[in-house]
Amino acid sequence: MAEKTAPVSARVVLQQCLHAKLQVKPAEVDSDAEWVEIQRGMVIYICFFKGATEGIIPKMVGALLNVKLCELDSGKYVSVLDLPGHVLVVPQATLGGRAKGKSMQYHGNIDKEDGKRLYELLVSRCEQQLSSSGACVEAGVAVQHGTYGNRQVLKLDTNGPFTHLMDF
Amino acid sequence: MAEKTAPVSARVVLQQCLHAKLQVKPAEVDSDAEWVEIQRGMVIYICFFKGATEGIIPKMVGALLNVKLCELDSGKYVSVLDLPGHVLVVPQATLGGRAKGKSMQYHGNIDKEDGKRLYELLVSRCEQQLSSSGACVEAGVAVQHGTYGNRQVLKLDTNGPFTHLMDF
Repeated sequence: MAEKTAPVSARVVLQQCLHAKLQVKPAEVDSDAEWVEIQRGMVIYICFFKGATEGIIPKMVGALLNVKLCELDSGKYVSVLDLPGHVLVVPQATLGGRAKGKSMQYHGNIDKEDGKRLYELLVSRCEQQLSSSGACVEAGVAVQHGTYGNRQVLKLDTNGPFTHLMDF
Repeated sequence: MAEKTAPVSARVVLQQCLHAKLQVKPAEVDSDAEWVEIQRGMVIYICFFKGATEGIIPKMVGALLNVKLCELDSGKYVSVLDLPGHVLVVPQATLGGRAKGKSMQYHGNIDKEDGKRLYELLVSRCEQQLSSSGACVEAGVAVQHGTYGNRQVLKLDTNGPFTHLMDF
């Protein structure tokens, strides 16, 4: 059986996509909803727990962008940086839930203000990493991201989501 | 910080959907690809680990179908059985991965034959539960599922994926 023993500062679910589209601003009386979208690449759903600090961000971003999860036509796997592929970061506080009876509880989740700060640092670090990769710049791939605290209305099109979990 | 200490027999990621479409048979020379689809409900991505046994299935299905993750217009949360909503079960061996350096390793995953048997038991138990719920039968909701071992080509449309993780 698998085992986990260490305390967890952040939980990430990764899904591969051919195309993904995320609402970043809901429609209002006088304006349409606003969306961002990416072509082939990786969707990063992220949740921080209480006790998470800025120190974890460089390690997380390094791991997420360099782990070999993207399948080439040859069957070989490369990182999203080497694909090169787009990145969509989605804040996803529900990932921190623990079932208690029939309800989910979120007592372990970080408070909103700290979560927002870490989330923005992570997005910014992802942007830096992609913009310092020659292959990414040349291919025109970029980071898109959701708005922390909003509902994450998402449309996803995959050739196999190849869903992965990473705890940090 | 969150903590996990117990051995894990199965890992499940849950996402809410408005519509989801999954390929169950790839296109061949003389036939088109076959798909199943669901309207509003829940996508259940599932991976079994070494050591998992049949005994876990009733508890898992009970938890997955009864946990209150589906949001009503009122803002209240109900289970997928009470929504009532459709269920799409997706085998997802990648969920069992552990990062080692830049690669994912799957040493903890159950072997293919046992995994297929548990997966089919789980699907069958989900079908039983939905068909024994008056609300589900009346609303015509049903269980759809992917083919164990195939690539899970998926299209997902959400009003917020509200991604949850449950380990068993």
